[in-house]
Amino acid sequence: MLPISALIRGGSTVWTVSPDDTVLDALNILAERNIGVVPVVHSGNLVGIFSERDYTRRVGLLGRSAKTTLISEVMTENVQTVNPDESIDECMQIVVSKGFRHLPVVRAGELIAVVSANDLLAQVIRSKEMEIGSLESLLSGVGEIT
Amino acid sequence: MLPISALIRGGSTVWTVSPDDTVLDALNILAERNIGVVPVVHSGNLVGIFSERDYTRRVGLLGRSAKTTLISEVMTENVQTVNPDESIDECMQIVVSKGFRHLPVVRAGELIAVVSANDLLAQVIRSKEMEIGSLESLLSGVGEIT
Repeated sequence: MLPISALIRGGSTVWTVSPDDTVLDALNILAERNIGVVPVVHSGNLVGIFSERDYTRRVGLLGRSAKTTLISEVMTENVQTVNPDESIDECMQIVVSKGFRHLPVVRAGELIAVVSANDLLAQVIRSKEMEIGSLESLLSGVGEIT
Repeated sequence: MLPISALIRGGSTVWTVSPDDTVLDALNILAERNIGVVPVVHSGNLVGIFSERDYTRRVGLLGRSAKTTLISEVMTENVQTVNPDESIDECMQIVVSKGFRHLPVVRAGELIAVVSANDLLAQVIRSKEMEIGSLESLLSGVGEIT
């Protein structure tokens, strides 16, 4: 099974915010980049993520202002990450069992990508379909020989 | 392949809002039920959905008030739905190709469930794994006979 790094496009930019940015700064990035979550990075290290869910529950529902609330006040800390060598199968288990929509990939503390659950699961399905195809041709080959 | 109805738990409640409800009403349902999207139903028919994304982009980013904005002003209309007999494989294609997180299941105009992409893709993976297991035992059986 391939490592998760096989799903990361080389040269693609990871959009991030700082803990001192405002929620409105993050909302602009989410909308401009058409993404649902933005990693929070401080001095090169991943310190949290800020998602549409964090915004909905921790800002909107509580009536806080996007202009004055800082990301550090409402981000999700202690984010589960994986390293680039983690197998796609193991990452799939994490995403499915915990219901995550995104999985940040980190090497030596440095964020290198955020993989979406949708992309990850679609890749697992493609791999399984290829495996099924191989087994089927093996079986049909056996049928022809015997 | 199983139909999508096989993924729907009998007796589970589908939480909905009305087009005349306020955004704040919907935010409360999203938080209480720990869901990311709520269907909008009028006279028993599905007329839209309202998601954390709709809230983030169409309310928060534009500085509108959750207390006074109505769901009808900011919901996503023309929602793609499937009927309960649609195969899980076809639903998987829709979810992956369009990047949907949820797929409403509708019978004769009436909403009967909302299936998450995560649950759907996890089910496809389990099916493929079972298929691989069957093919492998067929192959090992062939090996033993010949």
